[in-house]
Amino acid sequence: MLTIIALRPYIKMHFSQFDCQTLFNIFQWRRDVRHFLEDQVPNNIIKKLQQAMAYAPSVGNSRPWRVFNVSSQPIRKQVFSNFERANKQATRQYDTQQAEDYQRLKLEGILSAPVQLAVFTDTNPTAGHGLGRQTIPFALDQSTAMAVQNLNLAARAYGLGVGMVTILEPKEMETLFKVPPAWRFSFYLCIGWPKFSSDLPLLHTLDWQKNQETEWLEI
Amino acid sequence: MLTIIALRPYIKMHFSQFDCQTLFNIFQWRRDVRHFLEDQVPNNIIKKLQQAMAYAPSVGNSRPWRVFNVSSQPIRKQVFSNFERANKQATRQYDTQQAEDYQRLKLEGILSAPVQLAVFTDTNPTAGHGLGRQTIPFALDQSTAMAVQNLNLAARAYGLGVGMVTILEPKEMETLFKVPPAWRFSFYLCIGWPKFSSDLPLLHTLDWQKNQETEWLEI
Repeated sequence: MLTIIALRPYIKMHFSQFDCQTLFNIFQWRRDVRHFLEDQVPNNIIKKLQQAMAYAPSVGNSRPWRVFNVSSQPIRKQVFSNFERANKQATRQYDTQQAEDYQRLKLEGILSAPVQLAVFTDTNPTAGHGLGRQTIPFALDQSTAMAVQNLNLAARAYGLGVGMVTILEPKEMETLFKVPPAWRFSFYLCIGWPKFSSDLPLLHTLDWQKNQETEWLEI
Repeated sequence: MLTIIALRPYIKMHFSQFDCQTLFNIFQWRRDVRHFLEDQVPNNIIKKLQQAMAYAPSVGNSRPWRVFNVSSQPIRKQVFSNFERANKQATRQYDTQQAEDYQRLKLEGILSAPVQLAVFTDTNPTAGHGLGRQTIPFALDQSTAMAVQNLNLAARAYGLGVGMVTILEPKEMETLFKVPPAWRFSFYLCIGWPKFSSDLPLLHTLDWQKNQETEWLEI
């Protein structure tokens, strides 16, 4: 039975203009990182990343993200092989010049990142009792993506870089990690101390895709 | 042709322990809001929400989110009708007691939120030139979700509440907003000044789904 409790009266939780600016600085300096130093990442910071994910919104409060902390070298190598195959295939979509440009891009840091996380989404979690996901089942995937964005921002605040690898065959990832049938591959994250820092996306800097405004439509 | 430019050397962008704490406070106090005051939201804050989305990561730097700022009352009413139908349908998954509990939950603020955004994802954007989305096309949807999480956090920092409505029939939303065939419905956001504030999810407080730890798996 649902417990009806008195909601606490409005609690003042005021963030200052400085706090807002701090948040926007973290937004601006959070960039996908693929160039890592070899230094290890202390466990207490890893715990903060886990906590950042736990604070993410999730449909029905279901927290559907499932995270593997991947330290096994054989597993990392297989993830890298998966990337190499998928990347070779991806190159075929481009004509000669663009294919050359594409191949010059560094799109992952699997061989160098000290911390690597494989993130899956449970598409049928018990938690949440199905609330909010009947018409939009991918609200679960969206919840996982939001949790990963919290992780991205927390990592940046602690000085860490995160690279999100999407050039992977998801079915192979599900087989490699032997996940239950209801789990869907969502993200592979490479985490470590960045070799350099920027407030611009690397793909902008390297002229692959310049930043562009996204206008909102009025209706 | 891809321009190879010298990457800037490591720029010190250090965030302090206080900055990290600020970020985690924003994480903790960002909660889905469904109870709004009637006060309007200044345009300059709306602009900051738009900027927060623009700082989100996106696959291939493609920024695939497409946002309608919905001020039309007839459109809002149709969104609310869509919610009512979907919610009635969603109630049917529960047995008698749970259905009663479910019906007591307030799951949206469509009739009261002063600002409302309908967010879609372009599943075939020109920007990004297809990079990073061949094997995982839903990386585009993930990008949109991350942009919405940035918006959630920015809103919280400015004192605003955001409610994400997922109990909607997505096809009806696509028809209602007359979007191009490649656009997929992602989110409906209700935004305004919250009637109360909490550092706990409402579904936890109301005993629908308690917060629970998400352990990471070691491999």
